[in-house]
Amino acid sequence: MTIDLDALYSEDARAFVPSAIRAMAHLLNDPTVISFAAGAPNPETFPAEALARAANEVLTTLPTRALQYDVTKGYLPLRERVAARSVAKGILTSAPETILTTGSQQALDLALHVLLDPGDVVLVEVPTYVGALVALAARRTRPVGVRRGAEGIDVDHLRSTVQRLRAEGAKVKALYSIPNFQNPSGLAMTKAAKDALALAVEELDLLLLEDDPYGEVRFDDAAPIDTTPLAARVPDQTIYFGSFSKTLAAGLRTGWLHGPAPFLAKVELAKQATDLCSSTFDAALLDRYLASNDYEAHLTKVRAFYRGQKETLLAAMTAHFPAALAFTNPAGGLFTWVELPNGLDAKALLPKCVAQTRTAYVPGDAFVVEGDGRPFLRMTFAKESPENLVEGARRLGDFFRAEIG
Amino acid sequence: MTIDLDALYSEDARAFVPSAIRAMAHLLNDPTVISFAAGAPNPETFPAEALARAANEVLTTLPTRALQYDVTKGYLPLRERVAARSVAKGILTSAPETILTTGSQQALDLALHVLLDPGDVVLVEVPTYVGALVALAARRTRPVGVRRGAEGIDVDHLRSTVQRLRAEGAKVKALYSIPNFQNPSGLAMTKAAKDALALAVEELDLLLLEDDPYGEVRFDDAAPIDTTPLAARVPDQTIYFGSFSKTLAAGLRTGWLHGPAPFLAKVELAKQATDLCSSTFDAALLDRYLASNDYEAHLTKVRAFYRGQKETLLAAMTAHFPAALAFTNPAGGLFTWVELPNGLDAKALLPKCVAQTRTAYVPGDAFVVEGDGRPFLRMTFAKESPENLVEGARRLGDFFRAEIG
Repeated sequence: MTIDLDALYSEDARAFVPSAIRAMAHLLNDPTVISFAAGAPNPETFPAEALARAANEVLTTLPTRALQYDVTKGYLPLRERVAARSVAKGILTSAPETILTTGSQQALDLALHVLLDPGDVVLVEVPTYVGALVALAARRTRPVGVRRGAEGIDVDHLRSTVQRLRAEGAKVKALYSIPNFQNPSGLAMTKAAKDALALAVEELDLLLLEDDPYGEVRFDDAAPIDTTPLAARVPDQTIYFGSFSKTLAAGLRTGWLHGPAPFLAKVELAKQATDLCSSTFDAALLDRYLASNDYEAHLTKVRAFYRGQKETLLAAMTAHFPAALAFTNPAGGLFTWVELPNGLDAKALLPKCVAQTRTAYVPGDAFVVEGDGRPFLRMTFAKESPENLVEGARRLGDFFRAEIG
Repeated sequence: MTIDLDALYSEDARAFVPSAIRAMAHLLNDPTVISFAAGAPNPETFPAEALARAANEVLTTLPTRALQYDVTKGYLPLRERVAARSVAKGILTSAPETILTTGSQQALDLALHVLLDPGDVVLVEVPTYVGALVALAARRTRPVGVRRGAEGIDVDHLRSTVQRLRAEGAKVKALYSIPNFQNPSGLAMTKAAKDALALAVEELDLLLLEDDPYGEVRFDDAAPIDTTPLAARVPDQTIYFGSFSKTLAAGLRTGWLHGPAPFLAKVELAKQATDLCSSTFDAALLDRYLASNDYEAHLTKVRAFYRGQKETLLAAMTAHFPAALAFTNPAGGLFTWVELPNGLDAKALLPKCVAQTRTAYVPGDAFVVEGDGRPFLRMTFAKESPENLVEGARRLGDFFRAEIG
């Protein structure tokens, strides 16, 4: 006799959805395809040699601690460093108000567990990060979109949306936002937009879930963007998620969460139930790296690398894309967001595009909870060589020119 | 204005409970206290030098891969090794039916997310692992106890409990069991008890959640225990959790889950939403360690270490404890389980015991979901030096002798 697994799954498990991007893994890993799709940082930016030295130092000087369980909040010396860096950005926090997580994805997921019951509403930007939508779906919560434009969130739309939902009896608890160099749009909120958003969030009694993995990947152009976190404006009601994934090494899976002490205590209990603690060794390794190396100098190199990649790709897009295609010009991060004209459907066109051009992107609909996501697509400049960035832009330009007809 | 966080928490967050053991951390970390309380392995058993060599090899030969995101199931070469070891133990599995997790705690928690809605019943052994109870509480599920004796689970009690609960309309989905050298009792199921349990589980249509972190910490006595997993008996309905925490390094937080392919696909989606993937670097490091070192020889040393620790502690307990105290004689693992006579309450006595004797244990009630846990306490022989094991046993013996009066 075989057990009927289908009859046993939880309600959550019945609602699980795969990430549209992770589902494209076979395309992303095909070396014959020029990929603008992957969301991963470029491993050339990982300081492998310095991390190898740090690993050796950790395992020769404090193996007993680095290889043992830690408290659930994680390795204290790294929490102290992370908190100090956040304080320098204007966030009122401290090591006790910091918890280390398995990437900022876990920080978000733990916050959702502490906060949301099935059916509860979380406002999300349109477009927003796919991984957040996957985490919201896995708890059967209800994402509702608020418009985000070139400057930031449309706070009038935010206000009217919250008021309408609350009038309908919905529990509207939080707004999830990626203010700096957002995934997928690449856009950064202006200082004025952040100020207006902070006011609206206070007025609407919303908890702000601020995801900031790209804030340090700022291109330092002539007029640098102010990447001050929203948490610096509304400290009492912001849960802040940070990460070393885009600046040091994604595979060390080390992110963090700052939040008000009572909320953090709940997150700590959620994490204790989930995995006791994240890797002590990875945290100790990052701590030793930060102690022994000039992280600011490293960040400068990372920024220069991605700025160069962006400039190469955008110059090629400008040269080769039909004028009817619009795209963002990011001042940081890993992505640009493209809008197709004439009702073209990026998702429907992808298989044909890959087959004809051996070039891949991510269709925009997976990032869009309300309105029509079909004309959009996300491209990253992180992965490919400069030659491939140019060649891929040329191929895509030719492909879309033919589709526009 | 300050937001009212208390009004925002999820129903789950309102039900979160701290681990009784993690809540004792201040005692466990007091170097002036002889601690039989901590559940952690002894760091002397961690192969720090070999791991340092492996870390260096990984970061010099494949930094690009080891520092990058991986697929959600985790680093394939390690999954292949883990699956091959499990196959050798009789589990019908393969790398695709294996997912790497942040310790076996996360494997358990992900399985619970896939399986359980609030109010669903999971049968647990009496006594059972505190971390499982914490994870069950965090999802507001209902643990119900089944008796476990010296040989194994009382299958008559299991049958009658399931029948009673189902007659009452409860959704009884799974049995959580730690067959080998259980935490907290130290007891291992006999082969006959495993056979009987496998039959009962099939007959009752229960999913078996098998937690086996101690199976490889077997003392290899004259008559070694058969540690064959339950998963080898009921492969179609067992979700198996394994871990390197007790045999290589707890701080690398690397465990795994085997299960039927459709269940594993759900676990993969749950994990994708939770943290994308666990540390690639830690998995690559363990893979390299296993490729370059004689793990079986290492396990032999680990087993000998804990066997020596156990023999030292149990000899001292036999010599110094009042005859009215009963305790288990484990053939593996890290723990012995003590029963106090005359209605003595281990939890109520702990503060007095620590104050008078500077010796700590874990009160048993946290491990016991049904019946009276107060007479019980858990002691580990993992942490302390041989001298302290003897001295601590002497102090506890004197203390309980005085309490018995």
